[in-house]
Amino acid sequence: MKDLQMYIPTYEDMLAAHERIKPHIRRPPVRVSHYLNELTGADLYFKCENFQEPGAFKVRGATNAVFGLSDEQAAKGVATHSSGNHASCLSYAAMLRGIPCNVVMPKTAPQAKKDTVRRYGGVITECEPSTTSREETFARVEAETGGDFVHPYNDPRVIAGQGTCSKEFFEQTDGMDMVVAPIGGGGMISGTCLTLATLAPECQVIAAEPEQADDAYRSFKAGHIIADDAPKTIADGLLVPLKERTWYFVSNHVSEIYTASEQEIIDAMKLTWKHLRIVMEPSSAVPLACILKNAQAFKGKRVGIIITGGNVDLDRLPWTL
Amino acid sequence: MKDLQMYIPTYEDMLAAHERIKPHIRRPPVRVSHYLNELTGADLYFKCENFQEPGAFKVRGATNAVFGLSDEQAAKGVATHSSGNHASCLSYAAMLRGIPCNVVMPKTAPQAKKDTVRRYGGVITECEPSTTSREETFARVEAETGGDFVHPYNDPRVIAGQGTCSKEFFEQTDGMDMVVAPIGGGGMISGTCLTLATLAPECQVIAAEPEQADDAYRSFKAGHIIADDAPKTIADGLLVPLKERTWYFVSNHVSEIYTASEQEIIDAMKLTWKHLRIVMEPSSAVPLACILKNAQAFKGKRVGIIITGGNVDLDRLPWTL
Repeated sequence: MKDLQMYIPTYEDMLAAHERIKPHIRRPPVRVSHYLNELTGADLYFKCENFQEPGAFKVRGATNAVFGLSDEQAAKGVATHSSGNHASCLSYAAMLRGIPCNVVMPKTAPQAKKDTVRRYGGVITECEPSTTSREETFARVEAETGGDFVHPYNDPRVIAGQGTCSKEFFEQTDGMDMVVAPIGGGGMISGTCLTLATLAPECQVIAAEPEQADDAYRSFKAGHIIADDAPKTIADGLLVPLKERTWYFVSNHVSEIYTASEQEIIDAMKLTWKHLRIVMEPSSAVPLACILKNAQAFKGKRVGIIITGGNVDLDRLPWTL
Repeated sequence: MKDLQMYIPTYEDMLAAHERIKPHIRRPPVRVSHYLNELTGADLYFKCENFQEPGAFKVRGATNAVFGLSDEQAAKGVATHSSGNHASCLSYAAMLRGIPCNVVMPKTAPQAKKDTVRRYGGVITECEPSTTSREETFARVEAETGGDFVHPYNDPRVIAGQGTCSKEFFEQTDGMDMVVAPIGGGGMISGTCLTLATLAPECQVIAAEPEQADDAYRSFKAGHIIADDAPKTIADGLLVPLKERTWYFVSNHVSEIYTASEQEIIDAMKLTWKHLRIVMEPSSAVPLACILKNAQAFKGKRVGIIITGGNVDLDRLPWTL
């Protein structure tokens, strides 16, 4: 391997990740709803990653990175930049191992997100809400602490960790024709591709994206990465662009990318809360929104949907605003 | 048995009920939250009956009654009066068997509740919102249809059905020191007592009740049934009084009844939505509210909590009103 920077994780990496993280994560249940099946004409299976203790699938990649560190590196801890679930999941994983976690966050990040990171012992360094400030601040924190950089998605350990979700999902069901997950940076979709390419190559991997942050969709159609400047969507977990490792999986393994409007996402979110009776983020509603919009592509199929996270501000639900 | 009207269901009835209803109900998962364990100092296990297809544990008693009918009686169907989960669960059970279900509901019942009953094929006859009108109307419907009356809780088939929940709960955990469930008419509490008196006699059964509808608490202290006239609480599943069969179990087997204020119920509800990431009714939050209020009684114990239902108006969440 000449270019270690572009190491692509393998199926064996995913299997090793699963053994490594099993003691530290949950194995969330798969839920079904007769009502939603009737509504869509498909057999839908929902893997509830919102039920992980820190509320998101990202605990898989985070624990894989943290528990894979040498003792020497672990003493210096980990570092990342994120204002979302990766920040809290990495802090949570570091807390489980008892090592430092430094997080660079824009000072404009919601107080609730900062509180969660701190509750798990993460140390926050604030930056201005710009890419320049974030990169400068992160470089300084990384140099000062020696923390190992765990990128939110463009990291082979993280992708291998996220891939463990689909392994469990197949163990918990009698197989599926397709698995649909939301796409932002592409960490979960890449992990899903990684696992299913070997475990169930006949199973399609489909990505679901907000219309208002459809850079992955446009990249997929164009054949190269297109990054949006400042997308805006209620699905705030899906704002970030693809990077080279996730683009590798998206361009090689994803069958289709569908998009949904803001209102379609909100409607699908409320429908899921009502009929599955789970609390999930707007980002997690994008797959069902896309399925309802493209019903003919899913009719009669066994369709897995990954509910990616459940961290949402209960005081500001989109349908009450 | 001289007085058939006062037949008290047995452990064997519960076992038979479980065999009968297993093909028609779900076996909801048990959820835990490290955060809520830290907060309470107890090991909490939440049995998610809100994940039943019609969203409530009452599908257990309802399917036991419906699938236990002779073919002759089944042809005439079932009948009940209820404006809550029993109405929709009985309609759902009748739909599964393909038999008629007649429901008497006050005309003032929320439209959403009526819609759910009708979605499951239940036929609604409206009455005035008074006991007299309800009894008159129900007597007429019962006489006209010949439907078998399935009382929401004071029915041995219903109590035996609700008892199957604790059997599963014990199978899914390594035992518990106490099980806490909300109390309204007492169907779930009675089923819990019925099952645990034989399966785990050392396990305490504790009832949780809203302060503003504390008739079971006052009955328990007085030693006889006290029925409130018109209690008002956000926990609208818990408005009805004990009846002779549920009083039998409450007076003989319940260890303690705790109460919680409206605000304590709302706070516990929001806390559960946030950390367990499940959608549940205010009634289902009363146990956690009581545990938080009486922490010393639960500290260090393994405590089971039955999340009784998840049918809630998402447009009118109590903390946004």
